[in-house]
Parts: sequence; C-alpha cells; structure tokens
Amino acid sequence: MKNLAIGIDLGGTNLKGVVLERDGTRRYLERIPTEAGKGGTRVMENIVRLVQMLLEKVGSTDDIVGVGIGTPGFVNDDGLILGGAENIPGWKGTNMFDPIREQTGLETAATNDVTVTALAEARYGVARDVRNMACLALGTGIGGGVIIDGRVYTGTHGMAGELGHIPVETGGLPCTCGGRGCVEQYASATGIVKNALIMCLKVPVHSRTAFVDEALAAPNAVTSKMVYDYVAKGDPVAIEVHEFVCDKLACASGAILNAFAPDMLVLGGGVMMAGRIIVDTVVKYLPRYCWQQIFERCRVVSAELGQDAGVLGAAALAFDRLGGE
Amino acid sequence: MKNLAIGIDLGGTNLKGVVLERDGTRRYLERIPTEAGKGGTRVMENIVRLVQMLLEKVGSTDDIVGVGIGTPGFVNDDGLILGGAENIPGWKGTNMFDPIREQTGLETAATNDVTVTALAEARYGVARDVRNMACLALGTGIGGGVIIDGRVYTGTHGMAGELGHIPVETGGLPCTCGGRGCVEQYASATGIVKNALIMCLKVPVHSRTAFVDEALAAPNAVTSKMVYDYVAKGDPVAIEVHEFVCDKLACASGAILNAFAPDMLVLGGGVMMAGRIIVDTVVKYLPRYCWQQIFERCRVVSAELGQDAGVLGAAALAFDRLGGE
Repeated sequence: MKNLAIGIDLGGTNLKGVVLERDGTRRYLERIPTEAGKGGTRVMENIVRLVQMLLEKVGSTDDIVGVGIGTPGFVNDDGLILGGAENIPGWKGTNMFDPIREQTGLETAATNDVTVTALAEARYGVARDVRNMACLALGTGIGGGVIIDGRVYTGTHGMAGELGHIPVETGGLPCTCGGRGCVEQYASATGIVKNALIMCLKVPVHSRTAFVDEALAAPNAVTSKMVYDYVAKGDPVAIEVHEFVCDKLACASGAILNAFAPDMLVLGGGVMMAGRIIVDTVVKYLPRYCWQQIFERCRVVSAELGQDAGVLGAAALAFDRLGGE
Repeated sequence: MKNLAIGIDLGGTNLKGVVLERDGTRRYLERIPTEAGKGGTRVMENIVRLVQMLLEKVGSTDDIVGVGIGTPGFVNDDGLILGGAENIPGWKGTNMFDPIREQTGLETAATNDVTVTALAEARYGVARDVRNMACLALGTGIGGGVIIDGRVYTGTHGMAGELGHIPVETGGLPCTCGGRGCVEQYASATGIVKNALIMCLKVPVHSRTAFVDEALAAPNAVTSKMVYDYVAKGDPVAIEVHEFVCDKLACASGAILNAFAPDMLVLGGGVMMAGRIIVDTVVKYLPRYCWQQIFERCRVVSAELGQDAGVLGAAALAFDRLGGE
C-alpha cells in the first residue's frame, strides 16, 4: 500500500502543498503565491509547479497515491470547476485533473476547500473516530463540510455541504448566493462586522460605549477580531453583537442538527480565534432550534487543526479517493 | 439469498404489514388497528400479532430476512424509541426488537416512518437508480428522509432527516419541536389551513372571495384539499395562500439542496394530492433560495408510491439492514 499523498490547498493568496504520510505525519510543506488575479490558466500552472516541487523532494512517484486538492467554489468528481470562486477570473470551466496527469502521471481528487478541512478534522483533528459530523468554517464567508459514515459527503456533483446558506433571517441581508438572510451574512467575519456596524448606528448617543465610539469613528477598520476584543473587555454593545451573531449561528446549526443528526458539529475558521465563547453561546441558543433528542447527542466543539487543515484534508482526500494498492 | 421481507408501517390509526419479494412484488398485505390510544405496550403487542399473521400466510420464516418497521418519532439502531410520537402514550422507551425476536425468532430493523417512504421511492418508486435524494412528506406535519449513495441515511442515533424543521420565517409560528417558523408550520396540511385562515382574516370585506366566505363561515371545516379545490377554480385568495406556502416550501428546499446537493428532491404526502401545481411553484421560487449550480442539477418531482410507500420502504429497510444470506 502506497504511504504518501500530496495535498494542495488553493487559497486566495497562497497555494499550500504538503506531502503527507498515511498516519498524518507531514513530510514536506511548501507554499507559493496563487496569483489568482492572473487568471485560471496561471493558477493551474502554479498548482502543477507546486506538485512538481513536492515530487522533487520525494524523488519518485512510486509511493504516492495521488494528489488531493481543496478549491474554493464547486468542482465535480471529474475535476471540472462548475462555478463559484469569482476571485479567480476564468477558473470556471477549468479541468484540474488533466494537466496534473499529463505533467506528473499522478491521478487527482478534488473538492471544496471547506469540505477538505472537515475531512482533516475527521482524520487528524477533533473529530477522529466520529462517524457523522458537520463542520462550519467561519471565515470571510461561511463554508461547510459533511462527513457521513466516516467519509466526506460531496453529493453527486461535488457541491454538497453549502451550510453557510441556510436562511436565518426572513427577508434579511442579501447574500452572494443570490438569496437573503443566509447565516453567512451574520456569522462570517464580514457578516459580524456588518451587523456590528448596523447595531452601533442604532445605539443612542448617550448610551455609546467605547466599542461604538471606535467603530463609528473608523467603520472600515472594524474587524470581527476587534468586536471580540471588546467582548473580552465586557463592552455591552459588543456583547450584544456577539449574542445576536451566535443566535443566528445556532439557528443554522439547529437546521443542520435536525437534517444530519451528527455526533459532532465542528466550528472552525478565523472567527473561532475568539475562543470558547462562541461555542458556549451557540450551545446556549441551540435548543431553541432543534429537537432536544438530537441536541443531547451532538457535541459542539471548536476545530483543532487551524491554518493547516486545508492541506491535511486535501491529502486525506487523496488517500480516501485514490486509495493506493 | 433469502427472498422475502416483512414490512410494518405504524400509522396513527392502522398498522399495515406486507410480505415483500426482493424485486418489490407484494405477496401479502394486511391491516389491523394500531390502538395507539391504548398505549405503547398494546401497540407493540399488535405489531407482533401482525407479524405473526403474515408469517402464518408465508408458512415459515426460512425465506424471510427479517422485519422492517417505519415508526413515528425517533428510534435508534437498537430499536429503542427515543421520543416523538406523542399520540402513543408510553411509546418512548419501548424496545421494538426484543418482543419480535422472542415471539418469532426474526431480527428487526426500524427507522422513522417518513425515512422509510424515502427509501421506498428510492427502491421501487420515482427515485429508482438515484444516488442522492431528499424527500419531504407533506402530511399532518412534515417529515423528511435522506438517501445517500443509494442507502438510507439516519444519522448515528437514527434521528437524521428532520427536514420539516428548517426555519423559513424568523420568529414565525411556534412549532411542535419547540422552535418557531419551521416549514412544517407553513406547508403541512395543518400549516396550510392555519395560514389560509390567517390570510382570509386579513382580506377586506369588499375583496372577499368565495373561498374566504366559506373559510370564515366554518373555519374548522377548512382543509388543505379545500384550499387546493379553490386554487383549481382560480380563486385569487386561495392562489395567494398557495403561492405563499410554496415560497416557504422553496425556502426549506433551497437549504436542503445547498446542504445535500441531491440528484432529486421528492415531494410526497397527502398535500401532494393537489398535483403538479405544487412542484411547479416550488421550482419557480427555488432559485431564490439556493445556488444555481445545485438547482440546475436537481430534479424536483412528486412521489409515486402513495399510501403504500410506508410498508414498502419498511420491507426495503429489512432487505438493506438485515441482508439475508
């Protein structure tokens, strides 16, 4: 049985690549610029170049099951980009598998970038040995990933797990998906900032807190980290934003629990740098939004793997899909 | 390989039982009263009696893989009722498998009554050969079922697929699950009636239609069938109710599509007697609520099997879970 897989995480700024051993040991880690702005063709060339750089380190393809890729947007099981990822011009319609096969002889598997982080947590992180798991990644947007019977679930066309687009506010904020009131508009980093500013504007002058003053003085400088720094200091308006955001997140999480009845719900992404307070508050509101029997049997936890979850999950996908004899 | 399975559908009024051949041929069909009001012990006795009646017809258990049961509420993989099904006093805590094994020697598999109808459609109905499918049953409430990679998905504790409790109206009508604004409160038979009456009460006297007059004259006599009879006649208020209901159904369906990216969404249950108009209107509103790429690849269809879906799916569950050598 081949013991190595290459994992590639396609980020907006950097391409990260890993050579991973079957037990999760990272043998080599590389990073090069994605050059997303230069378009899909260049990005694909860079991916092939990164794979070749990693292959040079290994010395041969003999012990490699193949390449796994986590990409933004939708990719089907044949490696064709079906849409999404609007920050890479010409990415839609790209076939990711052919150039890698032609240049290196390796087979490739690919799926959404958040789906692979869910897989990473299931193989090497907080959800080891968990049979059914759902994951929400709270970043610039909100992505999702689903593990069913220990395997990553991507739907027939590779597009399942878009859990950031569960509606949590009827007729609410317009979303990139074309819908309204999706949880992404409330509990992603940008969603938290947007709702924080909306709430700050509603605070009467005599009730303004330090958080409101700073936010309104420089609205463009507000970040979700700043909101949570003020939460940590006990600022009542920042705490109100936090409670509102976690209530919306609990609403979406409740629908996820009712639909999947998972053993574990993993919350990850940059927003979770705020720490346990988000998990605790979501758990406080969750019983409003799902069956008690399901809630009682599902652990809600923070992701464990952080920044490297993407490459690890991409390599895990290669092990899962391309097996190795 | 054994060629027969017994399927039991536990309804509020009747217990239906079938002896099914592996290819879907119904060999025997029986029906006895559930006697739900007499409590869980009596219901379990009746189930065992129904299994024994069917066994007498077959003459021996030699060719039977086992018994499959579709039950309201939550049942885990060990046959223990975890909750739900409040119309059967003492049903929670019942073990369904032990009495059947003791009295007949047969093994049993069980899951939610709507989940088995989804399985029936996947094996013998409209979703034959469909890999990933979600099903909404619009009855007194709304149940759901999910088929993943051709197999019924019930989550680790047997409770997955509660798709009737996706929120579609923020702070909306209170739901039996403890939540608010669940799709069950809008697009189930009782939900349609409730919303129809709310809308009728808002119609100014000079704009009243025949539907409004009849509904307000006898509110307790309003049924979802009556609403759809008036829709067929072109009554503008009834049509408004229908459009509202289908928009809410589309909202929940959109979340289901985004989460599961299924090949097919099946709408079933008594409400679907209204015919194609519900499917067509849901499809009209769906693009508001999910990714275009997912919508384009998912067929939305009416269930095919009708009243017998429950017993057929229960027997299919026995074939799937209990195999047979």
